[in-house]
Amino acid sequence: MAIKTADEYRERVSRLTPRLFMGGEKVEDLMAHPVTRSVIEGTARVYDLTMDPRYEGILTAASHLTGEPISRSLHIHQGNEDLQNRLKMARLTAQKLGTCNYRCPGIEMMPSVAATSWEIDRETGTEYHQRFNEYLKYVQKEDLVVSGSVTDTKGDRSKRPLDQDPDSYVRVVEKRADGIVVNGAKQHASGAYAADETLVLPGLACREGEEAYAVAFVVPNGTEGMTYIAQYNPLSMERQYAGDRRVIGNPLYGQRETCLVVFDHVFVPWERVFMCGETAYTRPLIERFAKTHRMNCGGACKVGFIDLIIGASQLIAEYHGVAKASHIVQKITRMIELNDTCLGCAIAAAYLGKEEPVGSGVFMPDDAMSNTAKLNTNDAFWEILALAGDITGGMAVTMPSEKELENPEVKEYVTKYLKAAVPAEKRMRMMKFLQNWVAGTHGVGTYQGSGPSQNQRVALYRMTDLEEKKKMAEEVAYGKS
Amino acid sequence: MAIKTADEYRERVSRLTPRLFMGGEKVEDLMAHPVTRSVIEGTARVYDLTMDPRYEGILTAASHLTGEPISRSLHIHQGNEDLQNRLKMARLTAQKLGTCNYRCPGIEMMPSVAATSWEIDRETGTEYHQRFNEYLKYVQKEDLVVSGSVTDTKGDRSKRPLDQDPDSYVRVVEKRADGIVVNGAKQHASGAYAADETLVLPGLACREGEEAYAVAFVVPNGTEGMTYIAQYNPLSMERQYAGDRRVIGNPLYGQRETCLVVFDHVFVPWERVFMCGETAYTRPLIERFAKTHRMNCGGACKVGFIDLIIGASQLIAEYHGVAKASHIVQKITRMIELNDTCLGCAIAAAYLGKEEPVGSGVFMPDDAMSNTAKLNTNDAFWEILALAGDITGGMAVTMPSEKELENPEVKEYVTKYLKAAVPAEKRMRMMKFLQNWVAGTHGVGTYQGSGPSQNQRVALYRMTDLEEKKKMAEEVAYGKS
Amino acid sequence: MAIKTADEYRERVSRLTPRLFMGGEKVEDLMAHPVTRSVIEGTARVYDLTMDPRYEGILTAASHLTGEPISRSLHIHQGNEDLQNRLKMARLTAQKLGTCNYRCPGIEMMPSVAATSWEIDRETGTEYHQRFNEYLKYVQKEDLVVSGSVTDTKGDRSKRPLDQDPDSYVRVVEKRADGIVVNGAKQHASGAYAADETLVLPGLACREGEEAYAVAFVVPNGTEGMTYIAQYNPLSMERQYAGDRRVIGNPLYGQRETCLVVFDHVFVPWERVFMCGETAYTRPLIERFAKTHRMNCGGACKVGFIDLIIGASQLIAEYHGVAKASHIVQKITRMIELNDTCLGCAIAAAYLGKEEPVGSGVFMPDDAMSNTAKLNTNDAFWEILALAGDITGGMAVTMPSEKELENPEVKEYVTKYLKAAVPAEKRMRMMKFLQNWVAGTHGVGTYQGSGPSQNQRVALYRMTDLEEKKKMAEEVAYGKS
Amino acid sequence: MAIKTADEYRERVSRLTPRLFMGGEKVEDLMAHPVTRSVIEGTARVYDLTMDPRYEGILTAASHLTGEPISRSLHIHQGNEDLQNRLKMARLTAQKLGTCNYRCPGIEMMPSVAATSWEIDRETGTEYHQRFNEYLKYVQKEDLVVSGSVTDTKGDRSKRPLDQDPDSYVRVVEKRADGIVVNGAKQHASGAYAADETLVLPGLACREGEEAYAVAFVVPNGTEGMTYIAQYNPLSMERQYAGDRRVIGNPLYGQRETCLVVFDHVFVPWERVFMCGETAYTRPLIERFAKTHRMNCGGACKVGFIDLIIGASQLIAEYHGVAKASHIVQKITRMIELNDTCLGCAIAAAYLGKEEPVGSGVFMPDDAMSNTAKLNTNDAFWEILALAGDITGGMAVTMPSEKELENPEVKEYVTKYLKAAVPAEKRMRMMKFLQNWVAGTHGVGTYQGSGPSQNQRVALYRMTDLEEKKKMAEEVAYGKS
Repeated sequence: MAIKTADEYRERVSRLTPRLFMGGEKVEDLMAHPVTRSVIEGTARVYDLTMDPRYEGILTAASHLTGEPISRSLHIHQGNEDLQNRLKMARLTAQKLGTCNYRCPGIEMMPSVAATSWEIDRETGTEYHQRFNEYLKYVQKEDLVVSGSVTDTKGDRSKRPLDQDPDSYVRVVEKRADGIVVNGAKQHASGAYAADETLVLPGLACREGEEAYAVAFVVPNGTEGMTYIAQYNPLSMERQYAGDRRVIGNPLYGQRETCLVVFDHVFVPWERVFMCGETAYTRPLIERFAKTHRMNCGGACKVGFIDLIIGASQLIAEYHGVAKASHIVQKITRMIELNDTCLGCAIAAAYLGKEEPVGSGVFMPDDAMSNTAKLNTNDAFWEILALAGDITGGMAVTMPSEKELENPEVKEYVTKYLKAAVPAEKRMRMMKFLQNWVAGTHGVGTYQGSGPSQNQRVALYRMTDLEEKKKMAEEVAYGKS
Repeated sequence: MAIKTADEYRERVSRLTPRLFMGGEKVEDLMAHPVTRSVIEGTARVYDLTMDPRYEGILTAASHLTGEPISRSLHIHQGNEDLQNRLKMARLTAQKLGTCNYRCPGIEMMPSVAATSWEIDRETGTEYHQRFNEYLKYVQKEDLVVSGSVTDTKGDRSKRPLDQDPDSYVRVVEKRADGIVVNGAKQHASGAYAADETLVLPGLACREGEEAYAVAFVVPNGTEGMTYIAQYNPLSMERQYAGDRRVIGNPLYGQRETCLVVFDHVFVPWERVFMCGETAYTRPLIERFAKTHRMNCGGACKVGFIDLIIGASQLIAEYHGVAKASHIVQKITRMIELNDTCLGCAIAAAYLGKEEPVGSGVFMPDDAMSNTAKLNTNDAFWEILALAGDITGGMAVTMPSEKELENPEVKEYVTKYLKAAVPAEKRMRMMKFLQNWVAGTHGVGTYQGSGPSQNQRVALYRMTDLEEKKKMAEEVAYGKS
Repeated sequence: MAIKTADEYRERVSRLTPRLFMGGEKVEDLMAHPVTRSVIEGTARVYDLTMDPRYEGILTAASHLTGEPISRSLHIHQGNEDLQNRLKMARLTAQKLGTCNYRCPGIEMMPSVAATSWEIDRETGTEYHQRFNEYLKYVQKEDLVVSGSVTDTKGDRSKRPLDQDPDSYVRVVEKRADGIVVNGAKQHASGAYAADETLVLPGLACREGEEAYAVAFVVPNGTEGMTYIAQYNPLSMERQYAGDRRVIGNPLYGQRETCLVVFDHVFVPWERVFMCGETAYTRPLIERFAKTHRMNCGGACKVGFIDLIIGASQLIAEYHGVAKASHIVQKITRMIELNDTCLGCAIAAAYLGKEEPVGSGVFMPDDAMSNTAKLNTNDAFWEILALAGDITGGMAVTMPSEKELENPEVKEYVTKYLKAAVPAEKRMRMMKFLQNWVAGTHGVGTYQGSGPSQNQRVALYRMTDLEEKKKMAEEVAYGKS
Repeated sequence: MAIKTADEYRERVSRLTPRLFMGGEKVEDLMAHPVTRSVIEGTARVYDLTMDPRYEGILTAASHLTGEPISRSLHIHQGNEDLQNRLKMARLTAQKLGTCNYRCPGIEMMPSVAATSWEIDRETGTEYHQRFNEYLKYVQKEDLVVSGSVTDTKGDRSKRPLDQDPDSYVRVVEKRADGIVVNGAKQHASGAYAADETLVLPGLACREGEEAYAVAFVVPNGTEGMTYIAQYNPLSMERQYAGDRRVIGNPLYGQRETCLVVFDHVFVPWERVFMCGETAYTRPLIERFAKTHRMNCGGACKVGFIDLIIGASQLIAEYHGVAKASHIVQKITRMIELNDTCLGCAIAAAYLGKEEPVGSGVFMPDDAMSNTAKLNTNDAFWEILALAGDITGGMAVTMPSEKELENPEVKEYVTKYLKAAVPAEKRMRMMKFLQNWVAGTHGVGTYQGSGPSQNQRVALYRMTDLEEKKKMAEEVAYGKS
């Protein structure tokens, strides 16, 4: 069977030996380090949920290549219903993990590779699509975790790649008979070190002369020449030093963990290369990925997070005895409105989605609606954090450690003075969960994930038919009927 | 054929003699008075568009009662595609008229009457549904304009109907063998005086003891005892006294014209009564109407208006020579984002719509999404007006009359000094069109139409399953997997 | 005595014969035409208030030239307390008129002319300042209404004056021994046709070669060659045709009335010219005017309007019986917050004001705070309109004419059905007053008056010392102490 | 001399032995523990700045009791200029520390104690004011750090103190001849464990019967019966475990550190009790503190933070090579506008401040403006974080540790791939500084510090004279002149 268990994943990951550094030190054992372990737990949970019959059709699909049941994390959208189910998957895993579903970025890239490789082949006679399909069959069969990476390190943003350190964007430095050699690095790679594979797409729309940068490929974890340098922020350190993970805001799955993936003369055999030099197709490749990513990660995933934040805020309000106060009701209502707005735009993106390119069989969400979903989410998420942080009160940042509940010297005080309409333990747990949202990395993470607002705005302006609207206005203004 | 022409409508309306007052005077001839004529022109245009083959399926449908092609303005939604087409109709007529499609309110009420009469009959053994179907066949066959009215005059909002002047809400004052006699008045009735029929729904969720108020019925235009008192604001007067309607912002169709409809002992035969005393069903009747209304009039219709405003704002920016300025691009982009957000929520409302009650065959949009669409529109529309009024510059309120362009004494000055990158005539026309939006009745009209935000917020809070979200939050917070 | 009565003003204005057109027709009698009369009533009221001992020191001041008591409408700020009193004057007249104090634009320009003419003289040896002081003594003595005009018609905004119709900006077309001849037109001139004088400032920061446009001067009402073309919008027409002004939203004073003032070879004697060719001083001249204007007209005046809107909204809420509802309290509170924010920034602008240029004796408000006051007002005012229009309900746009209250055929119905917790007359009056705000010209008028947001934003960015803030950030980031 | 050096403070603090717990463990040495040390460093810096002649008059004042120069941190406002200087002090220390000036809360309480004790004495014949003055002379002479605490733990917010665990609010449990014994705990006490003294005010407006809760007093650090339980969040842990503090966002001063201060039968001699049982005065005591706190900590202090964030955002934009992009300029401009708005309202609060109660000699900021300043800051700060987090890009949350720059295995990669228009070291440092803001505790901290928005809204609504505004509206609506 093509759908694997969480234990099969754990078993595979226990054999991985990526060259990984975090906080200035080498991470020797992915399974043992508290931070990398949280990534593994999150991924394993997605495997578990995929086996859960309640989520059949949401987390699973039938492969369009083999007809076999597969994980939706490896499925190419074949219609609007697939897009809607993809949405549901994003929301569901967000609700269950409270952090990144590390299988998402890959599956947001793969439909774009499927569509664009088909298009390149048809128009230029290459064989990328067939290669990609073979690769897809392989990962579907093995049910592998395919991580995805697109954001180059970029160096000076005012310069093109060839006007600065040429490795500022991932590029081909050598073409051989058996494959290519690549250099450069990708940023913000969610959970790459605990994935079976890393799929790499170009991070800029290339111009003529920038052929070396028009490259898409996939490599197995820990390929020679690859180094992973993990993010390291206060939440990483909290997990690393907490001892008991039960005192962390999101005990099992933590925050989204990313890394910088460095490619230092990494060799990739041709069968794993899906674009190489076709600059004209970099823009569609990126835009197809972007709109899929914006609908799911930008839109529906955050709806799942907001579900959690609403639930937790309501609980805290109840714990404090203020849930019926009119200003609390108003804030919860505003959170619901924001949540439904993000969701509504994502649903519309799926509903209006189309086969693209026609004939490819691949369905893409609507351009305008996926960008609009993401734009709404960007602003909504910060507002949600502000609303939740209003409801928590100052304790969300000033609370003592839950370890004090077991500290014989102060246990009595903490129990006595941090109780509300519920015992202190209960209140502190939910408060800590909310701290993870309102005083963590989620505001910026959500805003920047799948690109900042300015990207969506530029896209939206470009794709809107202003001429049509001008004509409409003229008709009414001049009383034409 | 069941679809009639604009001329057939005009012919019918020319025979109507409602008792109508405006600005302190009686309106004797609907066709002749500049204000009432704008309502007729708007309605006639919808008849024209319905005949237009380009809009087949959007403005037309197949009757579920007879299978005949009918105007969608008289169609009961039979599925999600019907809801989506209803949306498209709302946006389309808004784009074409720049004001109210006066056939909308009626057709937002009729599905609710269809669904709720079916439900009452099934549960209480009445025969309302059959009556309604007979009536529906009649209006479908004749392709009549059915205006709808729901908002009671309410008097003191802190009191129930029976605690104040009992006519503050429309009520049955007498039941006879052949029908009922009703008293009271409905506010904000869009274009009622130029409609063939007026459908009346209860405006409050009745409690026990308030049976007299649980009444739904339909009356032909100008039934004895009915008086129409028209709204009268600066835009009404502008049209009344302009002489040449070409100098008005929306020359043919004007602003949305409404009236107060007074029922002074009006007799309604039983075959036109669709609810009478069933207090328990007033809430579902209203809520089904509300959500349909909020998706269409609250959501999609305003998307059509915003299309016009975006088009006109872009034109003015081009006329002024500033369309490429980054802050103008940013404002146009923001308008697009707001427009797509409103549209996205409306589409989601249609997509998530369901048969309600199950077995009735009637489809209703999703509760949460229709309310969310309206909530977004409320705020978005004011912001759109502010953005458009930012792009116009002060001239949107300070411009002289376009009549000066034909005034020999100043024509030269106006031509010379009000030109920009285009001649003064062109610029003044589009500026006047925008004045109609940014300095007119649309901000409040849009906000209040289909109910103010507070109504949607109360609905949204009530219908959200907070328990489910609390459970989700607890699972992640306690590290359950 | 230098302070004149309202009747003295009325007497003067009754002798004015400006060449004025409105709605395509010539206005023959300023005192008789309902629209121009509203301007005169507003101005006369300011004269009345100035005589009122309660407002001594706010509406009056001591002339710095003669020591005589004068109207503050003609006073040059001599210190921060003067700026604070100027603020109070703006708020007070706004509260009393509910529309433009037509004496304001002039007195927002005069301090700038005083300061800049002093500066030009000192640096270039001209005699503008002495001329201006002589002129000022004259108008102070006679207590004249000095209207001000700055906005050129501009034509194509992407072009400089010399790259298009050269009259698109007011300019000197001839210099004679006894004076200059000017051409061009100024827009948005508030109440110019009912003022004794019109002061004209350049509307753009001139560059070398544009000397003809660097011109400031003052002309008496109706000087030969001047034509006034009045704005004409629905509210103008309402007033023109209402018959009884008691049924208008703001019965006595109406909306702000402006006009296009055309200068067709108008001769101005040298003693009335305060700048002529000094391009380098056009920017400071404009900026000094702008910040004074933004503090007063942009800031404090609108605070007075918002006071009225809050009062009226609270009344309507009470009339409807909903004033204690939590969402109404919340909306009123938000209006108060916005009002205090605009006021706070204006007060800070006055508090931080400085003598500028040093030695001139003229005080100017703070640059950053005056722009910030205006920016806040721009957004706040639209939000205030939305909030007020939320509280009114739909009746703010759908209400019938108050004339129906005297129409024997429907009087009873209107009385019965439009009453709430108060009689219909009372409710309709306050509703009509609010209609004037929420469905009128105030959103755009407030936004554009003293310049749109983009102007303030550009100013704010330019004047902020980012280097200082960068240095602060570096110190903390690098742990310097 | 009454102004002491940083070393004198350090010397005192090194002798303190509060019973302090953090993260489940006892803190034995305040000077040695990385977290408590950051509080000491911040406080010491304020001592240093106070000696700096550049800040004379801002950080110093003349004692109204002795005429001696003292630290403004211990000065009672004697006029509006004092209030303005107090504002400048708040902004200045915020700019220098990037975190809490731990001397602020105390000095925001002391004027309220001065004013209210004077009032109680005058009206009830007590001697609190004299006691307070003696105490004040003592701390002024020794230049002690007086920490302040007001927020009770509250338990179930829907219940009064006597309806639940009576210790949920700090209270007198025994009155003796020589003093009182108190029980309870105060939350959110900023830096209390490193202060010389802790001043305690009642946290609720007491009713009759709640005399035990109407208590104000001051205790030295580490008084018997006091236990301090420190906040413990990811940023605390980062500092605890970082080893090298140079890799922390705010290396020297960190985040605001607070604690829960427990009073377990703590004895306070009468000379340190400033209110005991006078329930009627608890509301004015709290409100006077609140408005002072809201002007300074709520308003001006955050302006200093925003200065830092603007500076850092501008630097990052420059480092990335995008500082001239129009959307970046627009975001920086928006940050400036928000900053000036908060500052403007705070300045207006000081400008409009008054002696309160009249005769007391104590000046208080304006009620409405101090609340408005805080309300603006609450929303502005979250928006500032969102804007800054937009400019940083995702790296603000995904950046690796700066320790990698010294890790020989990856140093080269990090240097190569994290450089932009500046070297990686420089960029990482400023990015880490911004991480501290955009992914830290500041959103909630700022929002909740000096009370959440709902408190200010309730205050603002209560204190606004709606009757006066209603009257104004009626005058204009009815055309009275």
